[in-house]
Amino acid sequence: MATQGQVVTCKAAVAYEPSKPLVIEDVQVAPPQAGEVRIKILFTALCHTDAYTWSGKDPEGLFPCILGHEAAVIVESVGEGVTELQPGDHVIPCYQAECRECKFCKSGKTNLCGKVRTATGAGVMMNDRKSRFSVNGKPIYHFMGTSTFSQYTVVHDVSVAKVDPQAPLDKVCLLGCGVPTGLGAVWNTAKVEPGSIVAIFGLGTVGLAVAEGAKSAGASRIIGVDIDSKKYDIAKNFGVTEFVNPKDYDKPIQQILVDLTDGGVDYSFECIGNVSVMRAALECCHKGWGTSVIIGVAASGQEISTRPFQLVTGRVWKGTAFGGFKSRSQVPWLVDKYMKKEIKIDEYITHNLTLGDINKAFDLMHEGGCLRCVLKLHE
Amino acid sequence: MATQGQVVTCKAAVAYEPSKPLVIEDVQVAPPQAGEVRIKILFTALCHTDAYTWSGKDPEGLFPCILGHEAAVIVESVGEGVTELQPGDHVIPCYQAECRECKFCKSGKTNLCGKVRTATGAGVMMNDRKSRFSVNGKPIYHFMGTSTFSQYTVVHDVSVAKVDPQAPLDKVCLLGCGVPTGLGAVWNTAKVEPGSIVAIFGLGTVGLAVAEGAKSAGASRIIGVDIDSKKYDIAKNFGVTEFVNPKDYDKPIQQILVDLTDGGVDYSFECIGNVSVMRAALECCHKGWGTSVIIGVAASGQEISTRPFQLVTGRVWKGTAFGGFKSRSQVPWLVDKYMKKEIKIDEYITHNLTLGDINKAFDLMHEGGCLRCVLKLHE
Ligand SMILES: NC(=O)c1ccc[n+]([C@@H]2O[C@H](COP(=O)([O-])OP(=O)(O)OC[C@H]3O[C@@H](n4cnc5c(N)ncnc54)[C@H](O)[C@@H]3O)[C@@H](O)[C@H]2O)c1
Ligand SMILES: NC(=O)c1ccc[n+]([C@@H]2O[C@H](COP(=O)([O-])OP(=O)(O)OC[C@H]3O[C@@H](n4cnc5c(N)ncnc54)[C@H](O)[C@@H]3O)[C@@H](O)[C@H]2O)c1
Ligand SMILES: [Zn+2]
Ligand SMILES: [Zn+2]
Ligand SMILES: [Zn+2]
Ligand SMILES: [Zn+2]
Repeated sequence: MATQGQVVTCKAAVAYEPSKPLVIEDVQVAPPQAGEVRIKILFTALCHTDAYTWSGKDPEGLFPCILGHEAAVIVESVGEGVTELQPGDHVIPCYQAECRECKFCKSGKTNLCGKVRTATGAGVMMNDRKSRFSVNGKPIYHFMGTSTFSQYTVVHDVSVAKVDPQAPLDKVCLLGCGVPTGLGAVWNTAKVEPGSIVAIFGLGTVGLAVAEGAKSAGASRIIGVDIDSKKYDIAKNFGVTEFVNPKDYDKPIQQILVDLTDGGVDYSFECIGNVSVMRAALECCHKGWGTSVIIGVAASGQEISTRPFQLVTGRVWKGTAFGGFKSRSQVPWLVDKYMKKEIKIDEYITHNLTLGDINKAFDLMHEGGCLRCVLKLHE
Repeated sequence: MATQGQVVTCKAAVAYEPSKPLVIEDVQVAPPQAGEVRIKILFTALCHTDAYTWSGKDPEGLFPCILGHEAAVIVESVGEGVTELQPGDHVIPCYQAECRECKFCKSGKTNLCGKVRTATGAGVMMNDRKSRFSVNGKPIYHFMGTSTFSQYTVVHDVSVAKVDPQAPLDKVCLLGCGVPTGLGAVWNTAKVEPGSIVAIFGLGTVGLAVAEGAKSAGASRIIGVDIDSKKYDIAKNFGVTEFVNPKDYDKPIQQILVDLTDGGVDYSFECIGNVSVMRAALECCHKGWGTSVIIGVAASGQEISTRPFQLVTGRVWKGTAFGGFKSRSQVPWLVDKYMKKEIKIDEYITHNLTLGDINKAFDLMHEGGCLRCVLKLHE
């Protein structure tokens, strides 16, 4: 390609300061170095983790940066030593890398990967611990090893999943975060069995994906808990069989659920990021075996608590990152499942905008009616 | 037997008030009713749960009562409908019942049983919700459905495990609580695999049984953590390979262990009952998979806390009661393992006294040198 080996100048949404509107800028994107891939982002969605870092509440957030981590893209060029990918490949950038070589990848027990984490956590690339983004010579930090709010970005080769080129990129971009997180929490982390009673706290994209996963796992009752009653209609389409609005009751929500289920649920999922709901999600579990999975990301510094007796009497407290899916190995499988109509994606997309509308897209996220907003990055 | 159907008058240690010395009294023990068994206690050991309730810190503790739950006994007589047991059988009373009929027993997921719990929790027998113990006509409460600090006691038939009559009762009494709890926490609750790195917080009977279980499961490193350095020598005999005294360090103990193990342990066990140690035990676990099991019983009202990120990044928080063993089904199997010298018991017994010395036995429990003290109840 003409651009290979060159610095590319393109449009990106730069977050210069916490909470200040993102600025659409001409950004210089350096060519990929060894073990890196430069990708052309076609579509990206917004996720609450972007909003969280942008808000300034994330103590590890670095500014100026380019946010974004739910995208579908095409490889523009590859750096030295990158043999598994070539220009034109359709890929999904993954904030959870999978190197297949580190202690984590080889453990067989987790989808976390240690290889590039110290670099991505510091907003740089591993090779030279520098950023590939700049504006007028000043570096702009990377974010989550993905930075998809840019027409072009550079990522580590261990952080991209090559997918079916037939898959519609304006849809499968959602497989970069929220949908796999919910499905995987059920399938990989909780391992819900047929006949189980499930409670889901928070019916946003993640909670609805949990519902979809629980339905496909054969759960007999899927109880959706949300303070926004408008969520019920849409939630029914994803498998939720009963709806509980905590605002309709005086008693603690854990007690309501224990009463509704003759002793508690078999599995619960926290999909909000609220530490008191995390406690309720654990305590509504059935004595002896109930398992609660934390998915929501709580504000920095906040802590979860409970009486230890809750655990001594058999409840289990877990969490999940990216639903336990190994990114490079399993995102392509999720794409195939979507192509075979075995999992939903289209139904989560409530809005379609362009990169220039990104601030409006962030505003939409805080409205109840928005699940995922997909941005188109090129004309 | 001559006593069958009669009230038996025998010696028992009655706890009249929290923290006041137990009183050796003549107690009347009524005959067993339907579904009950009257047993002659030959040997009983003392456990920290007895001391906890006796101290008055247990909000569910009822006085006056007869404490004790780690014993080996002979069936004296059986009530109506009891077909699986007969006078002369050697049995171990179990504070965790196993009815094989309730939702819990049938779940296949827990060793807890719901059948007699509301009665045992209230210090009475299920049949008439009354006590079988009295002193001069005044009822004395049962404790944990066992009350083994008495020469005779009445228990529910679902709460006794029939064991090999060849087994020495002065030893296998320990299979009523502490030793199975530690072994089972490793084998049933954590399911430790060969090669694992294990940390044990607290090296009393329970912690040492965890060490024994971990050794037999093939753990490669078993790190014992105790503030009493005298525990190290004995702990080595149970499989502990390294000893850490938190008092020797300024840094938090979780950090010490993470540093010692290149990222954290695979499994940790809290065998003390201290909520801040419970937190440390979770946080010393390896990211991605480390599992922490709470065994210790914390003081009433105390809570455990951590940052939810600890769970989101893959750690698992669990607990165990009686090590997950199904009492009637598995205690006989543990007795057989002892008879085949596959598990230790003798090594946990540091003192032997008689019922009359019970107050001295409680004092001994608070001394570092005492693991289990076994009391002989009959001449
Ligand atoms: N662990 C991971 O890998 C991972 C991945 C993606 C997202 N997340 C996190 O998952 C969470 C959910 O993401 P989302 O995109 O679905 O969010 P969302 O904001 O779309 O959905 C949250 C839902 O929770 C409801 N809610 C808020 N407070 C509530 C309360 N007190 N009780 C009941 N319901 C309440 C809201 O009405 C909303 O419907 C976020 O915290 C996000 O950061 C985690
Ligand atoms: N979950 C169950 O089913 C179950 C069953 C039996 C016992 N228990 C509980 O298990 C716990 C242990 O019982 P045990 O009989 O082994 O007790 P123990 O008192 O003999 O042993 C406790 C050990 O912890 C050490 N310790 C105390 N504070 C410490 C600290 N801050 N850091 C490190 N070490 C410390 C002590 O020196 C001692 O060696 C108790 O809380 C008991 O009630 C639970
Ligand atoms: Zn996300
Ligand atoms: Zn890796
Ligand atoms: Zn005990
Ligand atoms: Zn039962």
